[in-house]
Amino acid sequence: MVRSSEQTRQQILDAAIEEFSTHGIAGARVDRIAKAAGANISSLFRYYGSKAQLFEAAFDALALGSIDVVPFDAEDLPGYTGRLMDHYRAHPEIVRLSAWYQLERPAEGVPAQVVVSERSKLEQIERAQAAGTITRELSAVDLLNVVLHLSLAATGTTPILAATPIDHAAARRAAMTAVERLVEPSDR
Amino acid sequence: MVRSSEQTRQQILDAAIEEFSTHGIAGARVDRIAKAAGANISSLFRYYGSKAQLFEAAFDALALGSIDVVPFDAEDLPGYTGRLMDHYRAHPEIVRLSAWYQLERPAEGVPAQVVVSERSKLEQIERAQAAGTITRELSAVDLLNVVLHLSLAATGTTPILAATPIDHAAARRAAMTAVERLVEPSDR
Repeated sequence: MVRSSEQTRQQILDAAIEEFSTHGIAGARVDRIAKAAGANISSLFRYYGSKAQLFEAAFDALALGSIDVVPFDAEDLPGYTGRLMDHYRAHPEIVRLSAWYQLERPAEGVPAQVVVSERSKLEQIERAQAAGTITRELSAVDLLNVVLHLSLAATGTTPILAATPIDHAAARRAAMTAVERLVEPSDR
Repeated sequence: MVRSSEQTRQQILDAAIEEFSTHGIAGARVDRIAKAAGANISSLFRYYGSKAQLFEAAFDALALGSIDVVPFDAEDLPGYTGRLMDHYRAHPEIVRLSAWYQLERPAEGVPAQVVVSERSKLEQIERAQAAGTITRELSAVDLLNVVLHLSLAATGTTPILAATPIDHAAARRAAMTAVERLVEPSDR
């Protein structure tokens, strides 16, 4: 059976996501990507241009494609935290690829899709604050920033606590408890 | 003035910390390190063996050397969170080098010094829990894990919220507030 060029493109992209999330941009090897995709290097470059452009395509496909897969709910930030943690557990390549992206491309801009998604989340938090269902003591940015860092508590890395295994369910409960207590309006 | 071999070693190490924290292991170039240190490549390899061994030496010097620079206080976890955030702001190379370390060397073990430091922190939290000064609803590991992820809230990266600038003072206040509310014993 002859593969269509569309299938080949997709298989190269899947192999690229795997290779880049494991090795980053500098460490990735296009010959390994082509081999894993069952394609040759010349078609890889024909479809994607360069290693850097292939990384862009892999990042767009994976990270941008998953931005709103976990529905955001400003009225239930603890639940959102837990669901995001489950999503990262199911797709650790998202956390790794994002970390590489931010380490290896620090000077680059942010995709428009990310900006739109962020703005929407912040507006939803502000509406919940205006309605008095979550605390107004901290800004929407600061609340979201806490939620997002806590959502990495089972899969992310810290410079400390490298030796202790982290249990997903326990870390999830702790992160959700922290968010729950943080967002509680003080006048309740 | 002739440099001593000790000075040359130190200058290579300083240049290596800078290079590896910017580019990671795969992306770092030993010729750039040697040039920045004003040394030649042959002395770099004579002192440190290989690029991978030089990374180890740089990581040990920076990350291990800073483990207990911020004094841990189980009775004041919000304060510890804030001080760790200040330390990471002053030394962003620690956060970056640790991220590279964990991305590029995932299968490696953890240095003994890290294990000892972690165990000590967990024991101190358990003593504070036994004394009833902080919550017992979550395990020491889960509490420390939350603290450490929140300590990255001003310098760390998340797959989301890439477009919004994070203000250090505001993020610090939010992280400390989150820890303060989390560790409060429920029977107070």
